Amino acid sequence: MKAVLEGIVKECRPYTAMGHVATYIPQLAVADPNKAGICIVTHTGEIHCAGDCYDRFTVQSVIKPLILLLALMDSGPEKVRELVGVEATGKPFDAFNYSDQALTGAHINPMINTGAIALCTLIHGETYDEKFNRLLELTRKLAGSREPELDEAVYLSEKRTGSKNRALVYMLKAYGLIDDPAEELLDCYFRACSILVSCRDLAQIANVFAHHGRNSVTHEQVFPKEFARYVNATLATCGMYDGSGEFALTVGFPAKSGVGGGIMGVIPNKMGVAVFSPALDKRGNSVAGIHMLEQLSQTLELSIF
Amino acid sequence: MKAVLEGIVKECRPYTAMGHVATYIPQLAVADPNKAGICIVTHTGEIHCAGDCYDRFTVQSVIKPLILLLALMDSGPEKVRELVGVEATGKPFDAFNYSDQALTGAHINPMINTGAIALCTLIHGETYDEKFNRLLELTRKLAGSREPELDEAVYLSEKRTGSKNRALVYMLKAYGLIDDPAEELLDCYFRACSILVSCRDLAQIANVFAHHGRNSVTHEQVFPKEFARYVNATLATCGMYDGSGEFALTVGFPAKSGVGGGIMGVIPNKMGVAVFSPALDKRGNSVAGIHMLEQLSQTLELSIF
Amino acid sequence: MKAVLEGIVKECRPYTAMGHVATYIPQLAVADPNKAGICIVTHTGEIHCAGDCYDRFTVQSVIKPLILLLALMDSGPEKVRELVGVEATGKPFDAFNYSDQALTGAHINPMINTGAIALCTLIHGETYDEKFNRLLELTRKLAGSREPELDEAVYLSEKRTGSKNRALVYMLKAYGLIDDPAEELLDCYFRACSILVSCRDLAQIANVFAHHGRNSVTHEQVFPKEFARYVNATLATCGMYDGSGEFALTVGFPAKSGVGGGIMGVIPNKMGVAVFSPALDKRGNSVAGIHMLEQLSQTLELSIF
Amino acid sequence: MKAVLEGIVKECRPYTAMGHVATYIPQLAVADPNKAGICIVTHTGEIHCAGDCYDRFTVQSVIKPLILLLALMDSGPEKVRELVGVEATGKPFDAFNYSDQALTGAHINPMINTGAIALCTLIHGETYDEKFNRLLELTRKLAGSREPELDEAVYLSEKRTGSKNRALVYMLKAYGLIDDPAEELLDCYFRACSILVSCRDLAQIANVFAHHGRNSVTHEQVFPKEFARYVNATLATCGMYDGSGEFALTVGFPAKSGVGGGIMGVIPNKMGVAVFSPALDKRGNSVAGIHMLEQLSQTLELSIF
Repeated sequence: MKAVLEGIVKECRPYTAMGHVATYIPQLAVADPNKAGICIVTHTGEIHCAGDCYDRFTVQSVIKPLILLLALMDSGPEKVRELVGVEATGKPFDAFNYSDQALTGAHINPMINTGAIALCTLIHGETYDEKFNRLLELTRKLAGSREPELDEAVYLSEKRTGSKNRALVYMLKAYGLIDDPAEELLDCYFRACSILVSCRDLAQIANVFAHHGRNSVTHEQVFPKEFARYVNATLATCGMYDGSGEFALTVGFPAKSGVGGGIMGVIPNKMGVAVFSPALDKRGNSVAGIHMLEQLSQTLELSIF
Repeated sequence: MKAVLEGIVKECRPYTAMGHVATYIPQLAVADPNKAGICIVTHTGEIHCAGDCYDRFTVQSVIKPLILLLALMDSGPEKVRELVGVEATGKPFDAFNYSDQALTGAHINPMINTGAIALCTLIHGETYDEKFNRLLELTRKLAGSREPELDEAVYLSEKRTGSKNRALVYMLKAYGLIDDPAEELLDCYFRACSILVSCRDLAQIANVFAHHGRNSVTHEQVFPKEFARYVNATLATCGMYDGSGEFALTVGFPAKSGVGGGIMGVIPNKMGVAVFSPALDKRGNSVAGIHMLEQLSQTLELSIF
Repeated sequence: MKAVLEGIVKECRPYTAMGHVATYIPQLAVADPNKAGICIVTHTGEIHCAGDCYDRFTVQSVIKPLILLLALMDSGPEKVRELVGVEATGKPFDAFNYSDQALTGAHINPMINTGAIALCTLIHGETYDEKFNRLLELTRKLAGSREPELDEAVYLSEKRTGSKNRALVYMLKAYGLIDDPAEELLDCYFRACSILVSCRDLAQIANVFAHHGRNSVTHEQVFPKEFARYVNATLATCGMYDGSGEFALTVGFPAKSGVGGGIMGVIPNKMGVAVFSPALDKRGNSVAGIHMLEQLSQTLELSIF
Repeated sequence: MKAVLEGIVKECRPYTAMGHVATYIPQLAVADPNKAGICIVTHTGEIHCAGDCYDRFTVQSVIKPLILLLALMDSGPEKVRELVGVEATGKPFDAFNYSDQALTGAHINPMINTGAIALCTLIHGETYDEKFNRLLELTRKLAGSREPELDEAVYLSEKRTGSKNRALVYMLKAYGLIDDPAEELLDCYFRACSILVSCRDLAQIANVFAHHGRNSVTHEQVFPKEFARYVNATLATCGMYDGSGEFALTVGFPAKSGVGGGIMGVIPNKMGVAVFSPALDKRGNSVAGIHMLEQLSQTLELSIF
């Protein structure tokens, strides 16, 4: 297996030249675009790695499935569904008319920023500090590691430049979908996106989703099976932004990408997988990352379709 | 298994009262809204039925995966992808400005009318008559039955009232995506939608997709494995219209619905399933049909996520 | 005045190099892009011309105000308003879902193709042939000339290549806004767009709108004052496509452009004006034409704002 | 004239029952819905009033033409046009994809919130406090009165509940259109909307626009003619939100409405007019106000079309 993974990294690393590292926040722009790593965690908990699989990068949008999971665990599926829909329509909202059509939960999705931010309000905690800490602890527990931690510099960079996310929060408030104080909520979300992880961490996390909440080594049921189904199904239809349809065709399993260059893939009942390579395509997905997942899927016949 | 299916039909039939039969063409409006049937075909080719599973109804949009398949078989995946994308964006097109943004293949999908109509041009045949006959023969072959046949009355009714599909064809022509004569193309599509099938037929067809092109009884490989993956992946992200995201959550396998009341479901490596009940929800999906699939999925643990 | 107009033509003719003649129908593509002409007709009926003001070109979208006028004359403002709105929203319509939001009159406008085509159904006449002839006669009457006539070659060219307009007609039918036979209706519209006119003709027509239905020479009240207001107001908000807002700023009076290169301008209570130059900008408006109108407006202080 | 205006108020007051006062901020919700007033200021500076024409209300969106004017005066038309377009397209912006199409100036308009907020950055002043004071002084100067002043309670109410405007500011920042500190900018805008005015004040202001920057009594040229044209043209195409097209038809002169119930109308070279009545239609325009303007326009033949 090690040889297979090393072959994949070797063959796909050249694709890094076809993308660009994210530049919208300064801290991301300094990433080395040539990095490429892969890690899989199997049914029995074995870990196989190749390339830069222990490099650390910020989790960014790959935290979204964990936000969704914690919202499900804390507030239950009814409240989650009431607040945030599951369609990938990305319906627009604008501000032309005084009495324009309302923005409703049906217009948003847990895997886009608006939905993920809204779901932070359903995580338990007296303060947003506590909510963030509970999310970080869940991340560590699923990763089976104490290594995931906040990258303070990225967080502060996001906070300074996060006008788009600020706009989304105020839009959610304007339409009455959320009520919480904007800056605290944003702070929690910016910190959530700035958690440092490695491929190994993400593959471990993905493996728990793949086994529907059950840890492959300890056999502990960390969260209910149906929450794993909820998350995995949502990833399948909307995890790769506008590229979700194509990804289903060429790779064929639920996955979530982040602009830090990581992608986490869930192969139900089989394994968790993660790749890392910071050069992105125009949709914000890791170029070499997608190619590694494609090769892996074909080599090991991992498509669920 | 028979008992399980009969229980499901019994429990779900009352949901028929919550929907309405399609009325946009007169021939569909006369359907009996209380009908409900289910059929599954297993890995070994066994058939299990309950309710009105031998009733015949027009296939309508459930023909779309077969159009996609035949286009793949006849013209290959490159040409198919070039003509019709895989994203479920449903991007709008209008006619405000002389030089408006072009409609491109990326804006359409094989599971919406525009995409399915465009794909008919990639089916081989000297004439559109021949194209239709090849599609009908494929349907019969996959169904393992000579029973699927054209419902002349529905076809003529569609033809008379099909202004929306006519509009779509001319839009495709206006943007240079297709070149064929509009009325012949439409005729082929209207006839394709008017093929009579039963739950049994659709479950047989679904079973071939579930086994990636291989017939469970004869073991013949009817079409290449990768074409099955192409179709199944497309169904998973866009088979149930706007309801695709929710369906992934509550049912969890690739499926395609039609306004005739049929839904075909593909459980890869396991089985094909079909339900029939003509009362539709506001998205055009069979109300009792979705409930039957939900119960079946939960009872037999069929979610692939 | 003659000197003023000649100065304007001379100064603006070089702008023809910045545009391109319409190519979407072959007959338009052969136009000489360097042509430029202007004509004004004053309060007392005096005619002043410069440049290629007697060249003939097809009226194209400049026929829309005349279609609106004849629909108002034949069916009255209530029926017109019921069928076609007055907002310039250009709302999109697509075909994703079986039960998508309806296309309503509020989504269309008399100055876009969809609205103008729909309004043809409100022109009186036993046949569409008769409707077209009544429109042609109205054009001649307002132009004070028998010269406007059908350009058969352009009409046949439009008919062969008019897929977009065909799409719009079937969309109107699909949503129940019109009921008439598609091809006859389209034929009438294609012929309406293919009427040959000169700057002189259009300036004469514009002058009747400027004097609210009254002929400046004969003093005949050709149509009621309020119909002129209806047309002029519609031109002001939507006559120049997406460029209507900018045109109000830089020129400042109601106008309508066509892809044949003509623009007709109405200066209420003062004069009618028309320019011709077939090289178009990306919005489909005549480049040199807009510059000529800008200069004219500034020189003679014609802005109504 | 007095009798004419009193007749109009009397006849139109019953329409107040067909609308509702704005409730999105508490201070607006307490307005008396039965109020109705009108005021005109003529070419020679004569003032004619009827009904509740000295009642004071907050200017709300009617401040937008003054923001545009001051931005023009302070920064010039080039900078204004560079920052904010003139089309009434109200194009949507959303946040689905990492690399979505940019929001550009062409998507916004001085008469919608996004555009007006952006234009505040072009008003001169060391601080936003100073910018606001310069806007208030301009308002007083054009109104010929020291009475316009800040309604502190409405301002604080707007500030507390202004999530939608906050969202718009952050969207402008996210797309790099503006750079200024969000809260100070919003504070200036919220205060601008909270200036108390009467019909008399607005009619005076409108009269200066009607005479292209020249005061009818003192004959002072307060601002350049072309700035008046810029504002008036913008009002004509986009002053009444989605109702601009219909307003052009039924009333026929440039106007701007606000959710405080005021509407200011500009009849170029003739007069300024203002109405007040706080019950609004679904587009946010004063119901009785629009009816009063319609009657006035018909009685005095004020349509410019």
